[in-house]
Amino acid sequence: MQAVVFDGALRLAEVSLPTLRPGEALIAPRLMGICATDVQITRGYMGFHGVLGHEFVGTVVACADAAWLGQRVVGEINCCDCGDWAARAQCSQRTTLGIVGRDGAMSEQFALPVANLHRVPDSVPDEAAVFAEPLAAALQIVNQAHIRPNERVAVVGDGKLGLLVAQVLRLTGAEITLVGRHPERWAVVERQGSTATGDAGALPARGWDVVVECTGQATGLETSRRLVRPHGRLVLKSTFAGDVTLNLAPFVVDEITVIGSRCGPFAAALRLMARGLIETAPLLYAQYPLAEAEAAFAAAHGQLKVVMHTK
Amino acid sequence: MQAVVFDGALRLAEVSLPTLRPGEALIAPRLMGICATDVQITRGYMGFHGVLGHEFVGTVVACADAAWLGQRVVGEINCCDCGDWAARAQCSQRTTLGIVGRDGAMSEQFALPVANLHRVPDSVPDEAAVFAEPLAAALQIVNQAHIRPNERVAVVGDGKLGLLVAQVLRLTGAEITLVGRHPERWAVVERQGSTATGDAGALPARGWDVVVECTGQATGLETSRRLVRPHGRLVLKSTFAGDVTLNLAPFVVDEITVIGSRCGPFAAALRLMARGLIETAPLLYAQYPLAEAEAAFAAAHGQLKVVMHTK
Repeated sequence: MQAVVFDGALRLAEVSLPTLRPGEALIAPRLMGICATDVQITRGYMGFHGVLGHEFVGTVVACADAAWLGQRVVGEINCCDCGDWAARAQCSQRTTLGIVGRDGAMSEQFALPVANLHRVPDSVPDEAAVFAEPLAAALQIVNQAHIRPNERVAVVGDGKLGLLVAQVLRLTGAEITLVGRHPERWAVVERQGSTATGDAGALPARGWDVVVECTGQATGLETSRRLVRPHGRLVLKSTFAGDVTLNLAPFVVDEITVIGSRCGPFAAALRLMARGLIETAPLLYAQYPLAEAEAAFAAAHGQLKVVMHTK
Repeated sequence: MQAVVFDGALRLAEVSLPTLRPGEALIAPRLMGICATDVQITRGYMGFHGVLGHEFVGTVVACADAAWLGQRVVGEINCCDCGDWAARAQCSQRTTLGIVGRDGAMSEQFALPVANLHRVPDSVPDEAAVFAEPLAAALQIVNQAHIRPNERVAVVGDGKLGLLVAQVLRLTGAEITLVGRHPERWAVVERQGSTATGDAGALPARGWDVVVECTGQATGLETSRRLVRPHGRLVLKSTFAGDVTLNLAPFVVDEITVIGSRCGPFAAALRLMARGLIETAPLLYAQYPLAEAEAAFAAAHGQLKVVMHTK
């Protein structure tokens, strides 16, 4: 079968069908999202070689537990025997779908433990469900940090993750300012009553209670640091490949709390999508067949979500 | 009168007596501590030019409020009209004694608002009281973060601040491991039942709930990052001059919370010293007359506390 492999170069390759281990299901994905992390991996992040991909929606085609057969599912990406998703996400023994020690979802079929699977409610179409993983990652912010309705929140970065984070944090009632470079993307957050701006330099320094860094770039980190108030919180969502150079003294002098934030709760993400509280359609940039993976990755550079399909 | 001035070079200079502004007291310090920050300033940190020094114990020699005259005092270092010490410490309008926009304490006499002063209990000798500022900074950790008695805490750095932090955190009942390079300094924390080691590499990675970085060096930051467990807390006490290069991805992947921490509560510091719960004598490396400030600064490099006296 065909799969998208990175082994120093990105290519479409013929791979063999995975052998299921106990507790695993075989999944035929219908849609697979390309994440910034996938692009980072093709630049050396995590040193991963294998089948890429950790965002998907698909159907269970083989499983020892017959109750899962034919179910439409999304899946958490961290795999081990540590119990719930929160324990799995940081376990030193874990594998991570398409990122650490486990072939990913960009394949005609792939394996994942049933403990990682979530049934997709009928009201959530495939094109929304494929956003379950990044939406869960956005929700992890409110899982880790108490964002209060009277706080001022800045979301730095108007990429896929930034647009999801802005939508999730808006549900707290807090005042949200999105800082980005792509005015054509802002309608979705402006419809929800949030503000968006391309001129970070015009924003008052040290004016925000909470700042979420979603750019994945050192310049975004510096902008975030400039915006956060003394005793404020800076949430780091981006994973940076390689080293970053920054001045740490302001974090100490202003007693900033920096919160690293990564994978989040899928069940809650599906509940919000089922209620129609998160708009994902404006985040979908393009669809490609799996067979055109190289073109899909090329198109994904600097754009909103590119999704591949097996249909 | 004589004062220790940095104006691109460190030197003893003749300066004029300060003019008191409303609300200020004139203080004749008896002991003045040299802090790592003072040494950093002589390397360009904060771009400060003026009289150095922010650690002192002395006597009020002039003050509009006669109740302060003759009192033996220590003093908080951040000055503005923002109310209590916590508000002053991060106010953008503040001056900071010997660090930002205000001449410091390494002088025969200097000015400080009475709102910053704390009377020293009779049971606390000058040689202990001069540690009030760094001890308050150590206490700021427990002011900002709830350190639980069943947590494992590593303190990285066995300088002055590290030895005070280890002592303060030991009072929570938590298990403390001090990581340093100077075995001759460890008796003070070992007497309190804490562990000290020079072999950070032999410590289990990701094994500590809380790690406090007190080395002021990028290598100490990397050691701290290696020791903190997933979802753990890394407290940054050091102010670094200039940029630091580090890999931020592990902070995101392991969802570490980084807490910048600086000035702390003097009143609580004096209460702990009055009870004899903090040993400062082992931290005192050498005393010099103010007139030998250059020798004192030279001696302070890499050593425990060097104190200057005006007596």
